[in-house]
Formats: sequence, structure tokens, C-alpha cells
Amino acid sequence: MPNFEEKTISTEKIFDGKIISLQVDEVRLPNGKIAKRELVKHPGAVAIIAITSEAKIVLVEQYRKPLERMSLEIPAGKMEAGELPLHTAARELEEETGYRAEQLTLVQTFATSPGFADEIIHVYVAEQLTVVEHKAPLDEDEFVTLKTYTLPEVWDMLQQGRITDAKTAFAIQWWKLQQLMK
Amino acid sequence: MPNFEEKTISTEKIFDGKIISLQVDEVRLPNGKIAKRELVKHPGAVAIIAITSEAKIVLVEQYRKPLERMSLEIPAGKMEAGELPLHTAARELEEETGYRAEQLTLVQTFATSPGFADEIIHVYVAEQLTVVEHKAPLDEDEFVTLKTYTLPEVWDMLQQGRITDAKTAFAIQWWKLQQLMK
Repeated sequence: MPNFEEKTISTEKIFDGKIISLQVDEVRLPNGKIAKRELVKHPGAVAIIAITSEAKIVLVEQYRKPLERMSLEIPAGKMEAGELPLHTAARELEEETGYRAEQLTLVQTFATSPGFADEIIHVYVAEQLTVVEHKAPLDEDEFVTLKTYTLPEVWDMLQQGRITDAKTAFAIQWWKLQQLMK
Repeated sequence: MPNFEEKTISTEKIFDGKIISLQVDEVRLPNGKIAKRELVKHPGAVAIIAITSEAKIVLVEQYRKPLERMSLEIPAGKMEAGELPLHTAARELEEETGYRAEQLTLVQTFATSPGFADEIIHVYVAEQLTVVEHKAPLDEDEFVTLKTYTLPEVWDMLQQGRITDAKTAFAIQWWKLQQLMK
């Protein structure tokens, strides 16, 4: 495998926020030339494919400010400093949906926008769900509505373009494949 | 559907770069409280599921500075100002791979990181590929290696965690589903 590594010459810190930070790196390209790279740093996140005992997937509907609209997605959340992805998955599932899973299994890990961001999402499948009696509260700036759908329902929603979130599109395909490959 | 719209109170522009820009918005939450949102603006992108006449998918291997490593992905690129997604798809396919498609069909449109960015990717499937004799050049700061794989090969790579890009994971599952649902 060729390695087209882009060696960092200098880093200019632009912004250090609550969720992301931004820097511009000057890099040396494989041909010796110099280029600039705009890099968003993100702590990483988890997302959860949660299937209830009635064979319904749990989705959360929330306002996504970057898109300026509501979006229907699998539960997800960013990792806290030092937190293991499995713990984030268990915590976010409970906070966002009020479900607890007997079993959480890693399905896939991927970068969401590798052209400009280092965000990595770990996707888990949550099985043997039970409803938590005294659910952990949401973050104070989070407002979500729970929805549950059968596979035929979400499959149709994906085909009709009503699911517009990458991790959720992946999750629906994954569930469909599980059923077809049984 | 409840609308948890977050109304913008003020916008602070932080950075305006070649590919992305960054702003911090102060918003009013549904409960009346105030919060800040860190928002990355991106022009949008296309990605292409390109299947050759030998039933192989075309992937490009490139260094991803945000991840500080090589990454194997379906061809993709960002939209130029005023460009239609279909034209971006045709252009990027030719620039990155040297293939031209008789047919380009939109498969899915999704947001990659709706928590902090407005990037939307339009995923096309490219069919009836022919090799372009005098291929358009890559951008001067792009270095990619072409690879082609059969479905069993990329399916295994996905299961083994060797595909670590969201749009490419989506593409492989899409191709697998096409085969299973035929």
C-alpha cells in the first residue's frame, strides 16, 4: 500500500469549543508541495441500533440546528473524556430512550466526514431491552421525541428519502440484511 | 410532529476557509432557555457506487489528514458553487477513477454529522462504465490509488473493520442488499 502521508509543518488553532475544535494545518504533500488542511476535532460518538421485543427499532426525533430542521435518527451521543464507547452506548441509550439493554454488541466503527473531521462513530446493536423505571435525565439542552417502527416501515422511509441521516441509513440497511441473511 | 425549532438569536462567524466555515449561534430552546450551537458549514458532496462490467466496485485509497491515516472509500468529492449533484458525480467519478458512466442514479441523500455540520452527501450508483482515454486531472493536492473489489471481498472487509468510512459502509451494504433482493 502506498502511503501518501501528509506531514504536518505547522498547526494554527482557530477555535476550541464545547463539542468541536478547529485547526488549520500546513502539510507537506507526497510530491513535496505545501497545502493547507482545515481540520475539525470531535471527541467521537456512539450510535445504537435498539430493537424492542416487539421487533421495532427505536428512533429519536430531534431538531438539528446545522440542518435547521427536525431529523429522525437512531439514538446517539458523544463520548465523554475517558469514557469507553460501550459505556457511552449504555448511557446514551438510557438517557435518550429510557431503555436498558442486556446486551450491547459493536457492529461497525466508521468516520463520518473524513475529508474535514476526525469524528468516529461506534455503532452498537442493543438487544433484550427493558424499560428503565427512573430514567436518567437528558442533557438540559436536548429535546427528543421517541418513535418506534417495524422493519418494513423504516425500510420504506429509507427508500422514500424520509431518513436523511447517514448512521440511521446504515442501521436500517444492517437490520434488513440481518433479516435477509438469517 | 412536535417542532423543537431552535431559533437563532445571534451568529458569531469564527472562520471562513477553503472547504468549511465555522460559526457559533446563540439559540432559544423550546423551553425558552438559551444555548450555544457550534456549526460547521460545508458545500455538500457526492459519492459514487461505481460497479465495473466485471462486477467489481471501484474504491479509492487516499490519505485522510483528519484521521492521520490512509482510508479506502468510494469515490467522492465536494460540490462546486452552483453545480448540480449529478454533474459533480460525473465529474468526480472521471477525475478520481478515469471511468465515465452511461447511467448515474441517485440512491440516497444523507447528512453525515448532523450534530455539528450541515454536510449532505448525495450517493449515486454509476452503471455501464467505460474507461476515459484522456482523463481529467485530479486536484493538485489529491493523491489517490484506485482499487477494485468483488462483493464478497468488500463484504469481508466491512465485517473485519477494514472499511472505516460511513458512506463506503453504506455503499457496500447497498450493493449486498441489491444482490440479495434480486
